[in-house]
Amino acid sequence: MRASQFHLFTLKEAPSDAEVVSQKLMLRAGMIRKVAAGIYSYMPMGLRSIRKVETIVREEMDRAGAMELIMPMVQPAELWDETGRWDKMGDELLRFKDRHERDFALQPTSEEVVTDIARQELKSYRQLPKNFYQIQTKFRDERRPRFGVMRGREFTMKDAYSFDRSEEAAGRSYDIMFAAYKRIFDRLGLEYRAVAADTGAIGGDRSHEFQVIADTGEDAIVYCPDSDYAANIELAEAVSLIARRAEPAKALEKTPTPGKATCEDVAELLGVPLATTVKSLVLATDDLDDKGNPAGVTVWLLLVRGDHALNEVKAGKLPGLKSGFRFATEAEILEHFGCKPGYLGPIGLKKPVKVIADRTVAHMADFICGANDADFHFTGVNWGRDLPEPDLVADLRNVIEGDPSPDGKGVLAIQRGIEVGHVFYLGTKYSKAMNATFLDEDGKPKHFEMGCYGIGVTRILGAAIEQNHDARGIIWPRAIAPFEVVICPVGWGKSQAVRDEAQTLYDALIAAGVDAVLDDRDERPGVMFADWELIGVPHRVTIGDRGLKEGLVEYQGRRDAEATKLAVGDIAAHVLGALDKA
Amino acid sequence: MRASQFHLFTLKEAPSDAEVVSQKLMLRAGMIRKVAAGIYSYMPMGLRSIRKVETIVREEMDRAGAMELIMPMVQPAELWDETGRWDKMGDELLRFKDRHERDFALQPTSEEVVTDIARQELKSYRQLPKNFYQIQTKFRDERRPRFGVMRGREFTMKDAYSFDRSEEAAGRSYDIMFAAYKRIFDRLGLEYRAVAADTGAIGGDRSHEFQVIADTGEDAIVYCPDSDYAANIELAEAVSLIARRAEPAKALEKTPTPGKATCEDVAELLGVPLATTVKSLVLATDDLDDKGNPAGVTVWLLLVRGDHALNEVKAGKLPGLKSGFRFATEAEILEHFGCKPGYLGPIGLKKPVKVIADRTVAHMADFICGANDADFHFTGVNWGRDLPEPDLVADLRNVIEGDPSPDGKGVLAIQRGIEVGHVFYLGTKYSKAMNATFLDEDGKPKHFEMGCYGIGVTRILGAAIEQNHDARGIIWPRAIAPFEVVICPVGWGKSQAVRDEAQTLYDALIAAGVDAVLDDRDERPGVMFADWELIGVPHRVTIGDRGLKEGLVEYQGRRDAEATKLAVGDIAAHVLGALDKA
Repeated sequence: MRASQFHLFTLKEAPSDAEVVSQKLMLRAGMIRKVAAGIYSYMPMGLRSIRKVETIVREEMDRAGAMELIMPMVQPAELWDETGRWDKMGDELLRFKDRHERDFALQPTSEEVVTDIARQELKSYRQLPKNFYQIQTKFRDERRPRFGVMRGREFTMKDAYSFDRSEEAAGRSYDIMFAAYKRIFDRLGLEYRAVAADTGAIGGDRSHEFQVIADTGEDAIVYCPDSDYAANIELAEAVSLIARRAEPAKALEKTPTPGKATCEDVAELLGVPLATTVKSLVLATDDLDDKGNPAGVTVWLLLVRGDHALNEVKAGKLPGLKSGFRFATEAEILEHFGCKPGYLGPIGLKKPVKVIADRTVAHMADFICGANDADFHFTGVNWGRDLPEPDLVADLRNVIEGDPSPDGKGVLAIQRGIEVGHVFYLGTKYSKAMNATFLDEDGKPKHFEMGCYGIGVTRILGAAIEQNHDARGIIWPRAIAPFEVVICPVGWGKSQAVRDEAQTLYDALIAAGVDAVLDDRDERPGVMFADWELIGVPHRVTIGDRGLKEGLVEYQGRRDAEATKLAVGDIAAHVLGALDKA
Repeated sequence: MRASQFHLFTLKEAPSDAEVVSQKLMLRAGMIRKVAAGIYSYMPMGLRSIRKVETIVREEMDRAGAMELIMPMVQPAELWDETGRWDKMGDELLRFKDRHERDFALQPTSEEVVTDIARQELKSYRQLPKNFYQIQTKFRDERRPRFGVMRGREFTMKDAYSFDRSEEAAGRSYDIMFAAYKRIFDRLGLEYRAVAADTGAIGGDRSHEFQVIADTGEDAIVYCPDSDYAANIELAEAVSLIARRAEPAKALEKTPTPGKATCEDVAELLGVPLATTVKSLVLATDDLDDKGNPAGVTVWLLLVRGDHALNEVKAGKLPGLKSGFRFATEAEILEHFGCKPGYLGPIGLKKPVKVIADRTVAHMADFICGANDADFHFTGVNWGRDLPEPDLVADLRNVIEGDPSPDGKGVLAIQRGIEVGHVFYLGTKYSKAMNATFLDEDGKPKHFEMGCYGIGVTRILGAAIEQNHDARGIIWPRAIAPFEVVICPVGWGKSQAVRDEAQTLYDALIAAGVDAVLDDRDERPGVMFADWELIGVPHRVTIGDRGLKEGLVEYQGRRDAEATKLAVGDIAAHVLGALDKA
């Protein structure tokens, strides 16, 4: 490709509403242009990278035996009604009516349509396993779209769906996809981690997120550097930090703590470690009678150590809370604790509450907690002596750096990540809701065991940039760079020698299958360098009259601090070597 | 590909709501599955053909210097307001609101978004010409979606938009696209015709439709077998069939024609040729005063020969009618003609009407027309003698087979066609509406001269099948067949010799770059043949033990009446020869 034939529009400054570095750089490099909030055009430069991602994804999905199809963007409400998602999904599902007042939605994913295909097409166990995938535009009406392609409303996703005879077979399909995803992210050239993730109501342990490591990531990834343990922080198990409870050593005392409504403030006031305090969090569940009518409220007191944070996903899996909980209202708190928030604790309650202690809290002795009296805390609190044992002891908190790894093989570290893929065992959730069955070997109908597997194609571009950039611009991994090599001739308009050498090198690279671009815009070196460093092309060759007189050209890798002079005759081989294509 | 790994679901019968042959065959061949009216999933078999079409289109667009990008499916009302299309487009533009109650539409085409890109990105004449294209999902909320992928609501279209400095340069861009389209349809292997089409309000002669020839086509294509004249029937010029008007030979007579309200009936009753009668068609225009308020109605009488049909597109271009016309109401007809329809004519009007005669009618003498008296016609009617000359003589009718070609080089023929592509010069219609300008060489801002160029990617599949099928199924042109060659081993499960020969041939074809499929389902020959003939694979090789004993296999082209026996050693070369890959 010649730069003069290409739509190369770089900007000195990103638009003021761009928030994160990948968004700014993609806008500045002319890869995307905003059309509306969370809706972008992918310009020719951006589309080149998208196509490379798509090709890698497609090749590995095909290699894993999945079959590509295309399901429609616009999907009828009838199918979404069958699974109840038409009503259950929030405003992210963009719903509308066609000219005949029939209800439709834009696909955010396609479980309903693919399950409908399966129940029509897959009649016998002999046709299983099957895995259908599509690389197709999706729409999610995010309340607050942001971060460019990282949290857009319209985006490209690869979504795959497997259909199996049994849970065991579904496990094999899951493992095949897991392996395919590893090959995909390896080939993309990204630093990533596959982490165990929450399975929600489905249960089991078959849910993994593929997270691209980046300091700017929205997700916290927990891993053990000494083992292969890795999990999303929502799921990562927090063990007790105290092996067993010590004997009480202090007396219970009601201590004035005026205006100190947080554990941090109380610890500072009393001159004690934050780890001797206990935080009280009050939840509520709305109870229903047998007929499903409201039947009062249960109030829950959750206790985590002062330096720990409540993990709401873990809380949501506990008996009594798993049908849904909310934070208690101030009125409910006053009614049960006789005190406003900030000074709450498990001693001296006005009305009964269910007390759940984090594993670590359950092993604490002589701890500090609110006294249910404004401006007072109890110190020297001990389970059994000062208050009954908790109703339930559970893993309630987020792990923190340095926690023991739950596999016993070291301590945990935490990284930030950007979720770009997710493999998920669905079980029979959709096949039962839509009565999608096949005839098994015994002649009896059976619901499909399903899995779903997503990759955020356009999001991968953003994640790759968040992970790989510097002050000058993007640093693309070679596999998804819009071009692999740029040739910058200095004095294109003036020097026949420069033009000839540039063209010779270009022809040699193209013949070797390299995706090269020749910058024939006749711009000054500074302009060319700034453009291609912003765009992030991994390899650059500069050819000028001065160097040619000595038989030299310059090579610079995008991460190199400076250029290397090379003999004209060696440059093609050098570039091919740098691309592993020699 | 092995058939056992593929989603191969053929149906004996098409669903009862399938109307046309391409729709029935695509459903039966398992290429598409209906999700809602006019909305289909493209199954793996169908997607293979779509990808082949897309690849050819993409290669030729790239070769023509166009640049691929992706514009969003969901487009904001603000852009569509700028051109007025938000209000002007009918219900085909599917409009909806997002969660924040902002207005959006699903793209039916993307003139607004691409013009917005141009006005942001193309600042100087030095950046021109530019041509942007996308291959992307489109949505048109057709009132009555039908014919499968031929008139669906959701479909894939390639749409390209050119931006030029001047009308002359835009003409060159148009010619480049026209040539690219010819290469595309040549490569697709379809019999097609590029025909001149109506340019509507834009004017000029730069609008061509690419029509795939098929008896079942919705469009009538007019062409001259002795020249390169070809036009859509809406546009094709109808010359006068009578060189000059003869002198009157008959007296005007009011003749009773009781109950004979059509020219056919009158001609039959009177025993005269239909070509001696004249048909009266009454239109009306709603006049406006200078302030745009209603100012009465003008009634128009259009006269075409009894054996001719009114061409409304031609009528719509005439002075007085080009701002929009309608057929007159019965009340308006009674008021002006004093008679009900069926017996109308230009003689003896109650109130003045504008009379427009078709070129042929204007040259007729001694003709027959309605007498403005129920159950009566005039015979022996002559211009000048019996009634004033018409207010206007114009080309008002559709051409018919045998008409002289307007280029004077022979007579016209008519074929049916399916429109699969359209190239169109837009002028400054959109750039002026959106104030999209560049700085020209003289430093002054100038509106872009634009063109738009569409190809119905999914529709091409339907058109290819309408053109190429027989009682057994589809007959794909090789370039877009889901597979080029199928190998049918007879007795796959039993014979090692058959398996070995089939595998050897398969490997040889794959190595030669042939898109082959090996039917390893261990089905009976009849089942295999029926499936692959329905699916329409162009070449088939059958390998069985009986033949192998004599060293023979069978080859059959999809259009061949029967199979040819060939030596095992020759078969690969024979197939490669049939594919022009030898």
